[in-house]
Amino acid sequence: MKTQVAIIGGGPSGLLLSQLLNKAGVETVVLERSTRAHVLSRIRAGILEWGTVELLNEAGVGARMAQEGIPHDGCYLTDDELMVHIDFKELTGKQVMVYGQTEVTTDLYNAQDAIGTTVIHGVEDVSIHDLDQATSYVEFTHEGARKRLECLYVAGCDGFHGVSRRTIPEEKRSEFERVYPFGWLGILSETPPVHDELIYSNSRHGFALASMRNENLVRYYVQVPLSDKVEDWSDQRFWDEFSRRIPSDAAARLITGPSIEKSIAPLRSFVAEPLRWGNMFLVGDAAHIVPPTGAKGLNLAASDVYYLYKALIDAVKGGSKTGIDEYSARALERIWKAMRFSWQMTTMLHRFDGEDAFAEQMRKATLTHLATSETARRDLAENYIGLPF
Amino acid sequence: MKTQVAIIGGGPSGLLLSQLLNKAGVETVVLERSTRAHVLSRIRAGILEWGTVELLNEAGVGARMAQEGIPHDGCYLTDDELMVHIDFKELTGKQVMVYGQTEVTTDLYNAQDAIGTTVIHGVEDVSIHDLDQATSYVEFTHEGARKRLECLYVAGCDGFHGVSRRTIPEEKRSEFERVYPFGWLGILSETPPVHDELIYSNSRHGFALASMRNENLVRYYVQVPLSDKVEDWSDQRFWDEFSRRIPSDAAARLITGPSIEKSIAPLRSFVAEPLRWGNMFLVGDAAHIVPPTGAKGLNLAASDVYYLYKALIDAVKGGSKTGIDEYSARALERIWKAMRFSWQMTTMLHRFDGEDAFAEQMRKATLTHLATSETARRDLAENYIGLPF
Repeated sequence: MKTQVAIIGGGPSGLLLSQLLNKAGVETVVLERSTRAHVLSRIRAGILEWGTVELLNEAGVGARMAQEGIPHDGCYLTDDELMVHIDFKELTGKQVMVYGQTEVTTDLYNAQDAIGTTVIHGVEDVSIHDLDQATSYVEFTHEGARKRLECLYVAGCDGFHGVSRRTIPEEKRSEFERVYPFGWLGILSETPPVHDELIYSNSRHGFALASMRNENLVRYYVQVPLSDKVEDWSDQRFWDEFSRRIPSDAAARLITGPSIEKSIAPLRSFVAEPLRWGNMFLVGDAAHIVPPTGAKGLNLAASDVYYLYKALIDAVKGGSKTGIDEYSARALERIWKAMRFSWQMTTMLHRFDGEDAFAEQMRKATLTHLATSETARRDLAENYIGLPF
Repeated sequence: MKTQVAIIGGGPSGLLLSQLLNKAGVETVVLERSTRAHVLSRIRAGILEWGTVELLNEAGVGARMAQEGIPHDGCYLTDDELMVHIDFKELTGKQVMVYGQTEVTTDLYNAQDAIGTTVIHGVEDVSIHDLDQATSYVEFTHEGARKRLECLYVAGCDGFHGVSRRTIPEEKRSEFERVYPFGWLGILSETPPVHDELIYSNSRHGFALASMRNENLVRYYVQVPLSDKVEDWSDQRFWDEFSRRIPSDAAARLITGPSIEKSIAPLRSFVAEPLRWGNMFLVGDAAHIVPPTGAKGLNLAASDVYYLYKALIDAVKGGSKTGIDEYSARALERIWKAMRFSWQMTTMLHRFDGEDAFAEQMRKATLTHLATSETARRDLAENYIGLPF
């Protein structure tokens, strides 16, 4: 088998890259470990920066999003005492879009089907070779047989646990990591959202986030110890805990219902450098993870794709190789800014075991600063709606 | 002896308060432990917020400052790789004033002399009594004899080690503290400043600050381990270390000379609440300490004085007591904002022993954020030039 760009991973990064490349006449093969149904069942992010929205439009997958997505003009931050409204629209002129990652992935699969690209599911034991040669190749097992895919370039879109990053020799990689001492327990429930904007609540009982997917589907979270298991949390326990962590006027309006999904995710900041290794380029979670506070995960993957797809088109079509030479540095510049923002949001909005009273006061003072300074709110808003690509 | 307001401490806070009260016809007695010469020899802050400048003008002590002070339009932050200019003037329309604390104190003493206020030096064993009665009194030893000063109100301007804060029963005080694991070694030298604006340099060899007092007097600092002693630092060693920590083009211009003062100060954040205890009010370092990164110490004392002097005039002259009732909350609101800013500046600009690579990246990303975001620079500038009283 032969293609121009082998894409390891058929999640939103790999599919979006494939879509943009194919639209420009660059041939791809996407290799995905799971089934399509499994990929589509993964509940992930739900907030799209406007730059991501525009990139999805550019990829030709924006039609349903335009119909069903919900633009948000702002969000709330609270710590029981203060309630701070961050008015994105007023502060930056821009909005974010509420549209779940599963919807984005569905739209991308449908678009890939429509243009007839090759997406191979159930791929195992991927290995990547000859990245320092003029052409490279990927080996993998599919339906019991070992296969070989020759290509000019490889895009590593296979997430944190994927093989792509580990293909770069360990001594040539720098990795940076911060593991936070708690996780988020998230539920999906087919109930109307408690508020028309997101509420990030750093309550005295711990953090909670009231988020949503659409007008009858909510995504709510509570901060939990890392030792907790999903089985520890009945729906009733979740609702009790969630409602005491959100502002009391919101809690009074809260409509509860059965959860249709419930999971615990650890919070982690992680970056691996560089993003390029010979003919291979890392994209999204394969190279970096952000804690969900700040909604940057999917959006950062989209900005990686933005830098990479143009660079690959140039390189494959025999044009300039400047784009691929500069990809790692350009993408990392934006990645580190989003890492900083996500880390700062996480630090500001969570209580940490064993912290001293001074740390608590600094968190409180940070929220007071936001409450009283339009400049501080604008800084947060500019980062939340997404820095320019 | 009898007065309206007994002021414990004859540093800049106590003198400024005394000056403003006397100008309004409120009688004071200032009690100071040290000699006037000793007070005037203490090298401290050198950067005045414009609000502090205006308050000194209001106190009638602005004439020499207007002649000899040097308004600064901005400052620099650097980490060896990036050099970020914070243009206060452009970002906020305001400036800060370079004018040493010793000069402020000299002007205040001269003004107190001119209006003939009572400042008693060499006072020992101060104790404060009857703060819950209609009139209170202060006892102290002076020239070998125990004396008693009756008063309506007491202003505790006697610094971190003073008796005023400790007069509030321990169980009625909340104290918040952060001790940073390093100190600043500072020198004064009669040499021309290496740059016409301040340079805060978070170099790979540790932090350095190039500050100044006037056109032929510099105040330079290097971060040192807390275990270091002044005797460990010859002038030569200081200059060698300082010059490798500031940007190389500045180092190339550096003019060195003998130090005329050299001292090591630990870095600490500290707040005690409340600021009022019956008839007593804490002001400045008696209630709060900031690390010097951000130049907030003297300026916070000035804003305390601003809130308190108006409140005391009202209360003494039989007007509203709202001011004294609200003093603690009003002053603390601004204090906590300055604590946050000073803590953030300290964290951003210093390397901490034992920190991980991620923390270092976050510091770097914070500087990159400032370099690339006008909003972030404006936020820093608004805090540096001083939030409104």
